[in-house]
Amino acid sequence: MPEFLNLLPPDEARQRLLEYLPRKPRSESITTESASGRVTAVDIQAAEALPAFPRTTVDGFAVRAADTFGSSESLPAYLTLVGEVPMGAAPALILGPAQCALIHTGGMLPQGADAVVMVEYTQSVQSGEIEIQRAVALGENILQAGEDVAIGEVVIPAGTRLGAAEIGGLMALGITQVSVACKPRVAILSTGDEVIPPDLTPGPGQVRDVNAYSLSSLVEAAGGTALRYGIIPDRADRLFMMAAQALAEADIVVITAGSSASTRDLTSEVINRLGKPGVLVHGVNVRPGKPTILGICDQKLVIGLPGNPVSALVIARLFIVPMIEAWSGLLSHKLTGRVTARIALNLASQAGREDWIPVRLIAEGDQYRAEPVFGKSNLIFTLVRADGLVRIAPDATGLQAGEQVEVTLL
Amino acid sequence: MPEFLNLLPPDEARQRLLEYLPRKPRSESITTESASGRVTAVDIQAAEALPAFPRTTVDGFAVRAADTFGSSESLPAYLTLVGEVPMGAAPALILGPAQCALIHTGGMLPQGADAVVMVEYTQSVQSGEIEIQRAVALGENILQAGEDVAIGEVVIPAGTRLGAAEIGGLMALGITQVSVACKPRVAILSTGDEVIPPDLTPGPGQVRDVNAYSLSSLVEAAGGTALRYGIIPDRADRLFMMAAQALAEADIVVITAGSSASTRDLTSEVINRLGKPGVLVHGVNVRPGKPTILGICDQKLVIGLPGNPVSALVIARLFIVPMIEAWSGLLSHKLTGRVTARIALNLASQAGREDWIPVRLIAEGDQYRAEPVFGKSNLIFTLVRADGLVRIAPDATGLQAGEQVEVTLL
Repeated sequence: MPEFLNLLPPDEARQRLLEYLPRKPRSESITTESASGRVTAVDIQAAEALPAFPRTTVDGFAVRAADTFGSSESLPAYLTLVGEVPMGAAPALILGPAQCALIHTGGMLPQGADAVVMVEYTQSVQSGEIEIQRAVALGENILQAGEDVAIGEVVIPAGTRLGAAEIGGLMALGITQVSVACKPRVAILSTGDEVIPPDLTPGPGQVRDVNAYSLSSLVEAAGGTALRYGIIPDRADRLFMMAAQALAEADIVVITAGSSASTRDLTSEVINRLGKPGVLVHGVNVRPGKPTILGICDQKLVIGLPGNPVSALVIARLFIVPMIEAWSGLLSHKLTGRVTARIALNLASQAGREDWIPVRLIAEGDQYRAEPVFGKSNLIFTLVRADGLVRIAPDATGLQAGEQVEVTLL
Repeated sequence: MPEFLNLLPPDEARQRLLEYLPRKPRSESITTESASGRVTAVDIQAAEALPAFPRTTVDGFAVRAADTFGSSESLPAYLTLVGEVPMGAAPALILGPAQCALIHTGGMLPQGADAVVMVEYTQSVQSGEIEIQRAVALGENILQAGEDVAIGEVVIPAGTRLGAAEIGGLMALGITQVSVACKPRVAILSTGDEVIPPDLTPGPGQVRDVNAYSLSSLVEAAGGTALRYGIIPDRADRLFMMAAQALAEADIVVITAGSSASTRDLTSEVINRLGKPGVLVHGVNVRPGKPTILGICDQKLVIGLPGNPVSALVIARLFIVPMIEAWSGLLSHKLTGRVTARIALNLASQAGREDWIPVRLIAEGDQYRAEPVFGKSNLIFTLVRADGLVRIAPDATGLQAGEQVEVTLL
């Protein structure tokens, strides 16, 4: 099959595209409380220390550690209770030698104190006197000021996707506005004379538009904004006009080609007319999705996807999702969810080609068996029936039943 | 430590809560194009077959298979070209013996044809005559009507979370409205006299509210709607009033307790006053997060979370996320993203207790090393510095350096 010699492996094709992407994403300032899932555009530095004051991490008694040395259950120390540290305020008291103060988790350490004894190891023996049954070291059960975050520290580098923990951390520092990458706008154009909108009833030979909607869902989940441009008939002038408009309005333009070879040629012709350098990759050595077209037009990305819904979704995961992430400036790459499983059957693969096999995962104890979801490649519901995809690397000629595989979850 | 004997393991605690949840979620009808991430409330049946007509899966020539039998490159068959199948319309032609018709991928098979020869194995010898260089079997390169989905088939069962593939599948069937579970409303109340809103500057002893915002982010990502009720001072009457309002307006009420023992007692007292049966679980055998309170009040869930931000987020993942999923009627449980790694250090754990250790993942070739993120448990940025969590099961007493572990991604 000499044709395969001209096809780029997916990794190389992706690399070629990345070279053309803008070095720095556009950014906008938004409220931190609305920033979940967004990617930071700049390094975020702490203007304050965390904690801002020494705090106890337990309920107990603030003490001078030296006063507890040598104390045990059989030979306790006795300290004079001089008060209670209020929550949310600086303690008014100053701890002298042989004194202690009641303190609650998170409370601010009073002056003079340098450790806290957990309440479990104390006993109130008489009014105003506390029995200390265990020695504590200097600093024990205390979080020192700045121990979590120092002033000036970069707490979240540029290119980080903000999740629950990051949102909380920003709030702790009083950072209620944050500079994030603008969401990449992804234009989606459907083509194909046989394609009709989903709310219409297809006549003979017609099918409803599937790809525009499944791709929109994927784009939004990946952190992009999906813009749908409708269904364009298989005519070069119409497709060019609509694609040019999309290119002006979006960062990434996706054209889901009709399924036939002639409409793919149309897509590639239109991409070459749209801007320079035009088509970079025509065909990728991957199954499904070989007839993928990757282009750059005026520093924007234009992708021609195969019309087959399974191929379109697999290729979108391989190319559109990483490009949305790159366009957002994502640096600390989120690991994708994967599950280790044993493949249920022998699977053959052509050397040099990367295969992505849809599989269903069957739990067996605390292991998983990955059962390939077979069916002709044009079945729309193949991926609905699958839990994930197994990759067969280009240098492998297949998988053996029972072999351990990584399943990328859908 | 006899205290641990009274603490429920997390699995058992979760099970106890699930018994009280409503059997059927409230549902609403929404457009399919806006339904990404939502959970189906009913079985979705196909009212049509997919494909609706026999289609070719390749570009080539529609033939009667019998006419190609025995043909090869050296001994080809010759068929009369009687036309081209248009995309998006029923072919007008009817194929007779020794005839063929040009057809494009996805095109509707003409009457009389029962297979398609790929264009690669044909040649146009003279006007109106096609050389067939390979035999095809009956049905070869054809998708039969109903081969993907049969009429009446349940294509998506109730309790399925809709992703890109499902959205596409629904559109293919013309299902543009879908019945989904209403998003569970999760009320979030912060307590603690030391807690102030994030946009204020803390005085001595004060800290900004972290949990309300990190929990909101987690709740929304899990498919719930977060409702924040602000910061309530540590007084039983005020907390009760606000919690009663939240219980009336939400499905799940989360009270992030102040960090001290006294405010936890307050939470538990308030939960018992809110409705029957009140507190079910007071303390869970897990670290972090032991002082978790789980209650049911008037068939709604009320959870008291520890004030420590790391504990609060870990416990929210263990209890709030599964409860949001259960409340949505999620049945086919999405597998959480996991990565297999080798733990970098020995870790000790108390038998009977389930531990969740924050780890950073370091790539080493195609393997990962999981490095525990240490630090006192009250550090807010611990989870920001981590990629995932490693579970030490209750029946284990620790992990050995180099041991293989599953890391649940954050």
